[in-house]
Amino acid sequence: MTGSATRTDQTLINALRCLSMDMVQAANSGHPGLPLGAAPMAYALFSRHLRFDPGRPDWFARDRFILSPGHGSALLYSLLHLFGYEVSLDDLKTFRQLGSKCAGHPEAGLVPGVECTTGPLGQGFANGVGMAIAGKWFSARYGSIADHMVYGLVSDGDLMEGVAVEAASLAGHLGLGNLVYLYDSNDISLDGPCDKAYTEDVRGKFEAMGWQVLEVADGNNLEEINQAVDFAKAEVGRPSLVIVKTVIGFASPLAGSSKSHGAPLGAENVLATKQALGVQETGPFALPDGYGEAGLQARSRGSALTGEWEERFAAFQMEKPALAKELACLIDGGLPDGWDSDLENLAWPDGSVATRESGHAALNAIASNLPWMAGGAADLASSTKASIAGGGDFNPADFSGRNIWFGVREHAMGAIVNGMALSGMRALGSTFLVFSDYMRGSIRLAALSNLTSWFIFTHDSVFVGEDGPTHQPIEHVEALRLIPGLQVYRPADALECKACYLAAMRGGQPAAFALTRQGVPVLNAFASQIAAGTPKGAYVLSSRQNAVATLLATGSEVALALEAQGKLESEGIGVDVVSMPCRELFSAQDQGYRDSVLPPGRPVVCIEAGVTQGWLGMGRGNVATVGIDRFGESGPGGQVYSHLGMKVDHVVEAVRTLIKP
Amino acid sequence: MTGSATRTDQTLINALRCLSMDMVQAANSGHPGLPLGAAPMAYALFSRHLRFDPGRPDWFARDRFILSPGHGSALLYSLLHLFGYEVSLDDLKTFRQLGSKCAGHPEAGLVPGVECTTGPLGQGFANGVGMAIAGKWFSARYGSIADHMVYGLVSDGDLMEGVAVEAASLAGHLGLGNLVYLYDSNDISLDGPCDKAYTEDVRGKFEAMGWQVLEVADGNNLEEINQAVDFAKAEVGRPSLVIVKTVIGFASPLAGSSKSHGAPLGAENVLATKQALGVQETGPFALPDGYGEAGLQARSRGSALTGEWEERFAAFQMEKPALAKELACLIDGGLPDGWDSDLENLAWPDGSVATRESGHAALNAIASNLPWMAGGAADLASSTKASIAGGGDFNPADFSGRNIWFGVREHAMGAIVNGMALSGMRALGSTFLVFSDYMRGSIRLAALSNLTSWFIFTHDSVFVGEDGPTHQPIEHVEALRLIPGLQVYRPADALECKACYLAAMRGGQPAAFALTRQGVPVLNAFASQIAAGTPKGAYVLSSRQNAVATLLATGSEVALALEAQGKLESEGIGVDVVSMPCRELFSAQDQGYRDSVLPPGRPVVCIEAGVTQGWLGMGRGNVATVGIDRFGESGPGGQVYSHLGMKVDHVVEAVRTLIKP
Repeated sequence: MTGSATRTDQTLINALRCLSMDMVQAANSGHPGLPLGAAPMAYALFSRHLRFDPGRPDWFARDRFILSPGHGSALLYSLLHLFGYEVSLDDLKTFRQLGSKCAGHPEAGLVPGVECTTGPLGQGFANGVGMAIAGKWFSARYGSIADHMVYGLVSDGDLMEGVAVEAASLAGHLGLGNLVYLYDSNDISLDGPCDKAYTEDVRGKFEAMGWQVLEVADGNNLEEINQAVDFAKAEVGRPSLVIVKTVIGFASPLAGSSKSHGAPLGAENVLATKQALGVQETGPFALPDGYGEAGLQARSRGSALTGEWEERFAAFQMEKPALAKELACLIDGGLPDGWDSDLENLAWPDGSVATRESGHAALNAIASNLPWMAGGAADLASSTKASIAGGGDFNPADFSGRNIWFGVREHAMGAIVNGMALSGMRALGSTFLVFSDYMRGSIRLAALSNLTSWFIFTHDSVFVGEDGPTHQPIEHVEALRLIPGLQVYRPADALECKACYLAAMRGGQPAAFALTRQGVPVLNAFASQIAAGTPKGAYVLSSRQNAVATLLATGSEVALALEAQGKLESEGIGVDVVSMPCRELFSAQDQGYRDSVLPPGRPVVCIEAGVTQGWLGMGRGNVATVGIDRFGESGPGGQVYSHLGMKVDHVVEAVRTLIKP
Repeated sequence: MTGSATRTDQTLINALRCLSMDMVQAANSGHPGLPLGAAPMAYALFSRHLRFDPGRPDWFARDRFILSPGHGSALLYSLLHLFGYEVSLDDLKTFRQLGSKCAGHPEAGLVPGVECTTGPLGQGFANGVGMAIAGKWFSARYGSIADHMVYGLVSDGDLMEGVAVEAASLAGHLGLGNLVYLYDSNDISLDGPCDKAYTEDVRGKFEAMGWQVLEVADGNNLEEINQAVDFAKAEVGRPSLVIVKTVIGFASPLAGSSKSHGAPLGAENVLATKQALGVQETGPFALPDGYGEAGLQARSRGSALTGEWEERFAAFQMEKPALAKELACLIDGGLPDGWDSDLENLAWPDGSVATRESGHAALNAIASNLPWMAGGAADLASSTKASIAGGGDFNPADFSGRNIWFGVREHAMGAIVNGMALSGMRALGSTFLVFSDYMRGSIRLAALSNLTSWFIFTHDSVFVGEDGPTHQPIEHVEALRLIPGLQVYRPADALECKACYLAAMRGGQPAAFALTRQGVPVLNAFASQIAAGTPKGAYVLSSRQNAVATLLATGSEVALALEAQGKLESEGIGVDVVSMPCRELFSAQDQGYRDSVLPPGRPVVCIEAGVTQGWLGMGRGNVATVGIDRFGESGPGGQVYSHLGMKVDHVVEAVRTLIKP
């Protein structure tokens, strides 16, 4: 160690390294290379820069720390332990074991102090951009009471990922001066030296994207690191990237080699590393003298910070009671009184309305009463209509704007929305449904972390029409339904759309919406069924006495089902029409309700303008499907729809075949 | 028009503009803005730089042209028409109509001269990098007979996409001097001015990634464009980006506005534009005097080029007959004699082998006889084992290498593999199955274009273990199966893995493989069933007389099924075990075969360590599933597997419940 590190600093940095190695060794699984190289910069952040209270890890105005290369989790858990969080030595010893707080990759919600779930590279980088956006918005609306910084540690692998570069480009454009990333530049990735695949000029690239770029030549030089971070903090108009040159697996016999990246070093190498570091007690999980002080100090420093902040908050409440009440609600994760009043009152005249239009109305009815709802589209706001009227644009001239121009950057949009959600905002991102593919990595993490993220996808079927198969989603609704925990809504009309937005807000779970481009009939005649049934995911929209079959449809196909119901009736065949705007909500209902909607033994024809695979199990054997198991075609939407078999005659024929004695 | 444009050049450029506008107007759908602005640079490429033969659009050594912003398709079709390809004026008049060659976005295979399917932004950019890689490889192996350039037109939207930036970073690293992109820089994207979201220094960013960057200040100046392209071609050690400043919707009343981007201009505006351009004949689809000359000239120039090339090829056959025979086979899209001989002979002793290991063996058995098989991993080759032993690394020092270090750039890897496949290589990309999410946009396009792309995904279940839920695929196998036309293979053991690779090669369709990290038993006792059954997608692996139920399993769960079969037998219950390595292949079999594997009426328990949704329809009503409908956990793989219900007892219990009278 060079630079200004005191003996204590040095001891504690080495303690982080040794704990991390020991954890990996005990688990016989994990990544020792990053902790050995990056411990000094992580220690620098936690000991000198980050404002946090380990006794109150969810303190609203804390600085955030993100470990984007989540495989270095042993370092993060060691840090949290050292700095007084509720992570015990016993927790560390259970690293990577079933049921442990200390999972293989850090999981938000599992352990206090972990700000976001990381591991899939690039996501943490982009989550941090979302947190920085949220931070700027909070400061713009609530003032200095909400100020905080976002720090992160990022890796070579992160910076190669498109999602990170997209997010970096947007962060630079937005001038997010509250964002400081330390780049653990060790020139090694999993397969070997980075120069096998990655030789770009990172400084030049980030400067071109509007970042301040600083360099620390020696990642062991604490003083240099601290100076660079101070410099980064001082730059308020640009995000900062501090390139810190490190050695992967530092001090170990495998130093500088990819062999130290992702496998235990082995007991002998661990011992040799401890000896090379000059550590006194070399046994597993041995703690050096004075170790406990760091946690005590962090706790005392932390409670001073939060105490002072509480005083400031009390003053804020006196000065600006309405705003303070609003902020308190946000901090609690609640919703303001009357958030749903405008939404409940939304109504449409009979006629035809695209659900992207009714979605716009529903979104705005919520947003008008929920100030911290914000988001935007990946350069498709004018098509998806996912914009907040009068909300203003979020940009350096006005960080209180609520419409974010994400640019053509779907993946970063997803991860940024997640970061904003992690900070407490009700955030949304929007694009065409077919491009949900581009952001699936982020949607999955929203589901895994159970965030409130909303993904609003429009142009939800071959009714896209002329743009053709590259733009016509076929498999996407079903593919989204496969993600555990994601609520996928495909409303049939304006009323059901409104009811879906209500249900999704109330549920507070990650949600994806599939909305039409084209107009669909407003089902005012069924208003009461829709309002009562939508929260249950599926319901009998239109019943017939002595129904011999059920037409189960979603979205724009509900109108088709109703038409088929009429045609069948004219032939003397009675069928029920069930609308299923959210299969996940329906699955969560009790068996009695489900049987009332889909009576056991009664034939079911499932109708959705997409792949049929997920519907085959719906009717307990006696099921037929009307869907599209192939790519679409370019042509006028209605023609393509019909050409691919989505028509009344096919539904009628399917019923006739099913009920044939 | 300024610069060196002759009167004829000017006339033809305006003809491209007018045809494009007329097509959009006739379809009442499409994107007139790009053609109006970018016609001169596209014309420059086709008239002066691209080496092609419109009468032989699949000529191997042609220069490639990619329209990455596929929404500008009207321009591409107009170009193909003007320059003598088999695209008639009547074809242009059917633009965006059902059944037309001229689909809304260009589709490879639908119309001669379209090199790849574009529309989802960024994909074309990255496809071109794949084609340039293929070009470099061809030249390195076959010499100058195979030389060609890759040109493209790229847009603001492309350059914002992560997939493009990833590909750009790799292209710069690899020094792909055969790649020249013209950037239609018009400062406008769909939602409005680019500066709302995109203000980076594109020149600086690309230079930092190792590109030569040139600028053309006036996109109407043909001389400036030609000089820049000449300069770009002269740079053999770096890819080139030519930033061409243009005006979207040039000459129209909506020039410079996003309103000209994606909607017809309207008849009045079309007329006004034609008048502003000084066009004589302003009627729809009117062609100027001398228009036909361009096609005739291009055809004559083209047949001279291909004729000369044929002579050179004949000489090449004399000089290097073996290499020429190999190249001829590649050009034909065939496979060399004996390509499968080593693969057929692969065998494993009894024991346990991970399918990523047997996949490595199968891949190498093919690669040893198929020189143009190449690919690599997204920085996970040491984990996925998808490398060609002795194949060398592909890099500027040796472009004949067959292992590509893609870096941590999954999405670009997918699109680059597609580009290589479009050029005739048998290309593969590899990563962990969970990260198939990152590259789904490209996998979909491989399927839509029916390419031979292979995507090799390993670590295919919660057996990933300690890395936890961020790295444990749950929904991914099923999500891949939803993509029409993609063949998804999940082999049970080494023998089935080999048989899957055989089937996938023979099928020549886009394929995804889901391979295990952990060892699975080699099923030598069932070798003949496996060899005979795998090509049919599913087969009875192990039968019992008077079987009362079927255990249907895939991948690592086949061993579990066999164990359960034994347990049930000990209780006097006979069940068949069916292995289903490829559901798509099975669905393509005739009903008789399918009934022989899954007898109607017999109960089925489907076993797969992932979401169960796709299995519920398998048993025609009498079906149970043993799977995992939630995210995984961090812990030793076997423990997690069992903890989440993947165990013999559960299978046995499921059978007992199903067959209960």
